[in-house]
Amino acid sequence: MPVNYEDRRRRLGDLLGRRELDAALITELHNLRYLTGFTGSNGALILPADGDPVFATDGRYIEQGRTETGLDPRLVKGPLHPGLPALVIETGAHRVGVETHDLTIDQHETLREADEGGDLELVGLDQAVERLRTVKDADEIAALREACDISTRALEQLVAGPVLGRSERDLAREIDNLMLDLGAEAVGFDTILAAGPNSSIPHHQPSDRTVQRGDLLKIDFGARVRGYHADCTRTFVVGAEPTDWQRDVHAAVHAAQATGLKHARPDVGTRSVFDAVVASLEPTGYGDKFVHGLGHGVGLVIHEDPFMGETTTGRLPDRTAITIEPGVYLPGLGGVRIEDTLIVHADAPEILTTASKDLRVIGT
Amino acid sequence: MPVNYEDRRRRLGDLLGRRELDAALITELHNLRYLTGFTGSNGALILPADGDPVFATDGRYIEQGRTETGLDPRLVKGPLHPGLPALVIETGAHRVGVETHDLTIDQHETLREADEGGDLELVGLDQAVERLRTVKDADEIAALREACDISTRALEQLVAGPVLGRSERDLAREIDNLMLDLGAEAVGFDTILAAGPNSSIPHHQPSDRTVQRGDLLKIDFGARVRGYHADCTRTFVVGAEPTDWQRDVHAAVHAAQATGLKHARPDVGTRSVFDAVVASLEPTGYGDKFVHGLGHGVGLVIHEDPFMGETTTGRLPDRTAITIEPGVYLPGLGGVRIEDTLIVHADAPEILTTASKDLRVIGT
Repeated sequence: MPVNYEDRRRRLGDLLGRRELDAALITELHNLRYLTGFTGSNGALILPADGDPVFATDGRYIEQGRTETGLDPRLVKGPLHPGLPALVIETGAHRVGVETHDLTIDQHETLREADEGGDLELVGLDQAVERLRTVKDADEIAALREACDISTRALEQLVAGPVLGRSERDLAREIDNLMLDLGAEAVGFDTILAAGPNSSIPHHQPSDRTVQRGDLLKIDFGARVRGYHADCTRTFVVGAEPTDWQRDVHAAVHAAQATGLKHARPDVGTRSVFDAVVASLEPTGYGDKFVHGLGHGVGLVIHEDPFMGETTTGRLPDRTAITIEPGVYLPGLGGVRIEDTLIVHADAPEILTTASKDLRVIGT
Repeated sequence: MPVNYEDRRRRLGDLLGRRELDAALITELHNLRYLTGFTGSNGALILPADGDPVFATDGRYIEQGRTETGLDPRLVKGPLHPGLPALVIETGAHRVGVETHDLTIDQHETLREADEGGDLELVGLDQAVERLRTVKDADEIAALREACDISTRALEQLVAGPVLGRSERDLAREIDNLMLDLGAEAVGFDTILAAGPNSSIPHHQPSDRTVQRGDLLKIDFGARVRGYHADCTRTFVVGAEPTDWQRDVHAAVHAAQATGLKHARPDVGTRSVFDAVVASLEPTGYGDKFVHGLGHGVGLVIHEDPFMGETTTGRLPDRTAITIEPGVYLPGLGGVRIEDTLIVHADAPEILTTASKDLRVIGT
């Protein structure tokens, strides 16, 4: 089933009409991909509220652009931005929404200078496409499901093999290669793999430290499929029965994560999901050891709207894709994080990262 | 030998004085790394023309920032940009250079709104740090040398092994893993590995196509070391003596690349190096098959100033690091590109990618 880019453009077009914009000029590359399928590194879409979309790119991407977008690309020679105003003016547009969260000051100035006749009024588009992107359609959910499935299988293969005595770096490379072996188009982000005391650093970079018996082993990783990212964290104990504090911390995080899943429903405030998780951690005594946000939207970008944390103000849309990833970190000792990627639904979320969340002993 | 960040900041400070700026506000992350050593994903440097530098970041990066920069980080809670104006005002600065090629319109607006008293005059810094970065110091050249050395060794290991019948994707993954095995901190960019007719696509993505006897095999790849990128392309023939057209095209590109190396000297116009290469291709009949720029600066960013092409206007500084990478592409048939990373010097460039540029037969 091909992705329905026309439907996505129609939804943006409807929104332009309501905001009295004649057209949108889309330059943010993930938004461009979302609306056209184009995966190159340089291009733009001019979407009139009424009328045909215009896709522009440079000489390198004319053929690729034609194949990917099904549109007839307009060639811009040299830098892209100076060539765009003329193409916008051709569509008859005057009041044009631009992506002020993506355009640099210099690019904006270039657009204005190239509009020599002053025909264009450039208005902020207020992240309209990012907002459309928070609600995932069937194609997007299928890609996320596939990315999460590959990630889960890679994790199971990794932890079924030898772990003791291997370096964090070596293990991180193995799970990366496993994801690629299983069909990921790419590794979605730099894998975090942290053993022993390093697991208490939320975003530890894999080092030459070797995994020791009794270590906590925290793995935060994910595959990319058709541009969509999986994001999953699990924490294990290596080669020995868990100690009491390891059991305690893991149980606290496991329960907190379940609380997050229980509260993540359509129209619920992102802050209130965060607060519920913090409240569930309070009685464990680890409330102040949860030092980061609760989760984030995930899709064409690994961290995207909606974010869930102490200062976020939005609500969760139905069919949004998010992570829920509380963690507890005891500096110098170790830390536990448990993270799922899931689709928000009214009844219950669809959890895409299906690896067991029990405290498992590996590497025995 | 530790990198001399103070010297780099002093050079920027001198430039601020000449431009009557009280301070620079550095937000572009590669520039921030260049001036402080900070490698995190969120931070800023306020560099007064006279006075102590102020490094700001969020809670995640306070400890890392302290270690990497040797400065005492100022904590900004929540988003970074709203917190910066107060820190700038503290330094007594009024007229402040900002990075208009990096700041988005929204970020710029945030800075202005947070400057409630209107104390700051924000002026474009005109890519001043990028210009400093075009001239490489000894530490940078050492990192580039190491990255190129790892890349060269990885290539030799790859082409010494089996090639026939393996997919482009599989071979690309092998050279990536070889670079990591040899000590690269990361693969510098997505490896381009193209066999047979695919080699005629300048930026082909590795596919499931398997390598056939008689194919041209084009590999464009590079390791990253301490943030610095190698960039190298070589083209081989697989499992058979080269055909006449393969020899012809390779010889033309080889000679064109040598012409580029001969002309790349300090103070030479980037356009004139490009023109010399095009002129050297004309008599071969392949002049119109060289369809991209001649090369680019390389450093903390894989494609950075100085660029060399049909429309570039700058000159090559002494001790800049660049690539020279002409190519000839015959659609449907195949293509050849030969690319070195080199340091520009008055006598002769130091070529860092030392793999043979002869037309070698591999996979026999």
